[in-house]
Amino acid sequence: MEKQSPARAWQLPDGIDELLPDAAAQVEHLRRSLLDCASRWGYRLVTPPMVEFTDSLLVGVGEDLDLLTFKVPDQVTGRMLGLRADMTPQVARMDAHSLNGDQVNRLCYAGSTLHTRSGSLAASRSPLQLGAELYGAKGLSADIEVIALMLSMLDVAGVEIGRDLTLDLGHGDIFKHVLAASGAADAGIESAIFDALQRKSRPDLERLLEQLPTGSSAGLCALLDMHGDLEVLDRAETELADAAPEIRGSLKELRELSTALQARYPEVSLYVDLAELRGYRYHTGVVFAVYTRGLGEALARGGRYDNVGKVYGRARPATGFATDLRLLAAQLATRETAQDAIAAPDLEDETLQEAVRALRSAGETVIVMLDGETDSRCSREMTKIDGQWQPQLRRESLGGEG
Amino acid sequence: MEKQSPARAWQLPDGIDELLPDAAAQVEHLRRSLLDCASRWGYRLVTPPMVEFTDSLLVGVGEDLDLLTFKVPDQVTGRMLGLRADMTPQVARMDAHSLNGDQVNRLCYAGSTLHTRSGSLAASRSPLQLGAELYGAKGLSADIEVIALMLSMLDVAGVEIGRDLTLDLGHGDIFKHVLAASGAADAGIESAIFDALQRKSRPDLERLLEQLPTGSSAGLCALLDMHGDLEVLDRAETELADAAPEIRGSLKELRELSTALQARYPEVSLYVDLAELRGYRYHTGVVFAVYTRGLGEALARGGRYDNVGKVYGRARPATGFATDLRLLAAQLATRETAQDAIAAPDLEDETLQEAVRALRSAGETVIVMLDGETDSRCSREMTKIDGQWQPQLRRESLGGEG
Repeated sequence: MEKQSPARAWQLPDGIDELLPDAAAQVEHLRRSLLDCASRWGYRLVTPPMVEFTDSLLVGVGEDLDLLTFKVPDQVTGRMLGLRADMTPQVARMDAHSLNGDQVNRLCYAGSTLHTRSGSLAASRSPLQLGAELYGAKGLSADIEVIALMLSMLDVAGVEIGRDLTLDLGHGDIFKHVLAASGAADAGIESAIFDALQRKSRPDLERLLEQLPTGSSAGLCALLDMHGDLEVLDRAETELADAAPEIRGSLKELRELSTALQARYPEVSLYVDLAELRGYRYHTGVVFAVYTRGLGEALARGGRYDNVGKVYGRARPATGFATDLRLLAAQLATRETAQDAIAAPDLEDETLQEAVRALRSAGETVIVMLDGETDSRCSREMTKIDGQWQPQLRRESLGGEG
Repeated sequence: MEKQSPARAWQLPDGIDELLPDAAAQVEHLRRSLLDCASRWGYRLVTPPMVEFTDSLLVGVGEDLDLLTFKVPDQVTGRMLGLRADMTPQVARMDAHSLNGDQVNRLCYAGSTLHTRSGSLAASRSPLQLGAELYGAKGLSADIEVIALMLSMLDVAGVEIGRDLTLDLGHGDIFKHVLAASGAADAGIESAIFDALQRKSRPDLERLLEQLPTGSSAGLCALLDMHGDLEVLDRAETELADAAPEIRGSLKELRELSTALQARYPEVSLYVDLAELRGYRYHTGVVFAVYTRGLGEALARGGRYDNVGKVYGRARPATGFATDLRLLAAQLATRETAQDAIAAPDLEDETLQEAVRALRSAGETVIVMLDGETDSRCSREMTKIDGQWQPQLRRESLGGEG
């Protein structure tokens, strides 16, 4: 393992990091394993562009994603470019515009994103986002499929699907309906209320609700406590649904989803949080996130966002999830990288070069020793025996005997 | 193959594109094959950051790379950030700063870059750069190794290493020495001369040289004609070396390199171009590029750049090359993607789910049919026979008999 010496470390911007060989190999291994897993579920890779015009990149995605997006003028057209801060809306646009037909589309993707600010002190400003999205299927089966795929990917990554995992469930519509029922949507203080709920700050929320007609805002206050195990769904039914009857359908979806997930993953804890809005920027249905013990950030998160396609001219049912490969890799035990290379001398010898070529074709790592170089990865070296070049254990690797 | 319908295409900025499933799969396959090839030669993957502070990203890389770089203020510090336009200087910085020791380092990388402008009308402004760099080895053997690796990667990619390939050779120092000998370096018109040479424009060059003392600029004019087969090296020896004796060493390197390459790759044409400066931004020694018949852009290019490490406080011998995966993929025959998936019904049936899980673990693609979906990729479907779920050829795939 090579260590980065602090004294010599190059100053990189906050939340921006580079990956040295061991970490880069781990992330690359993860990237391939997860994309291959998605492929076995029928998800096809797409690659959205690094930049788009802001007026297409940011249409309908909400103010918080807009503020996270770096913008820079395009010298060619003078129009504004935005650097992708989230690839999901891009993939939704590709489904709606670039892929024809009304069939179900299963798409996956992996790439760097960039944020103007990090969500927390430790968070990356350049997540390596990998995700999968399912378009054109509106039933709960689609939500169950993407959650099952997410857990399958975590399993492939080496995360144990067991007691240490919690699956948070919420719903993108419940807050909106409770807000509308409270009259706050007309009063134009939604974003302040949204913010107070995100921070779960009761004093701030109460102060805001004083501006609303008396009695109309009980639902918003009650939302603050709507988190815990599945009994939360019963409480919401009695305490919220009279004021905002539209949420009955959402609660029913969450109930059916929980039942299906408990049957499939009895070992994973379910946690319902109807006030959890963080990270759900454009969601309209079931939302979810997986947490592991001891880590404040979600390992992966996602949900339904049927409305995103609409702004691109084609409303398509949509659900999916994403993870940050760097964050995920940091949670996993370090993989031992194979250190079993073969050293070859630097000679203009055709038979040597032919032997090296054949070994590499067979998957061996062969490193030519230049300028008196030594490489600790090489346990064997090319040796000429009876006119034939072949790999032999290195003398210095043979140990002290004899 | 899905086609992008022009009428519905989303407007992306000039030179920025997205990859739909078939193209994305092709590029991903190429990315993995080339990185695996580099690994078998001992090159370890590193991942430089998407952005860095401009005062570290752009130090010592030259004005043209500076102008290609998008810049945007960092909200956290107020300092200027640059989006990487070329990953090679980043990797050189990682070698010099983040990896300890004076040993030989072989590094490879792959990632998106972004350019403010494209080099030509058709060129991408977001090349998917993949490259390999060799640090700490100063001999010609290192240059030969990276050229051999480059050709091996092209071979792995499916490019035929034969008559259609031309390997252009040049030298990063020759122009500088001829320029210095002409007195133009003092006259401050280097960049105009550089530009005229790049465009191979004799009238422009002659107009510029009128500003210099009579007779001193014959070398620069002669450079214009210094391209062709290996006899160019003889002509340079007689026509240039008297005026600029420093180039004798460079010519000797090119001669030795050509001899070694002709022995290893007799089928590849060598083309010497001492005035070719395009794309060689920070090079100090042997430079090279591979061209294929009918394509104006190089498939891959690189060269020696010993000085880049110096500005990071540690002068390290350095040589390497890079390619654009999208450009390379576009040159290759389309790979047939396997369309042999298995359809599964959407049932909450534990034995079905277990069978699907086992098939996916064995590498099969199994797609659950949601909302009455059909998928043309599925030639088989999960069928229950004697209480066991197993994949069977689909009825509609069996053809018209019976």
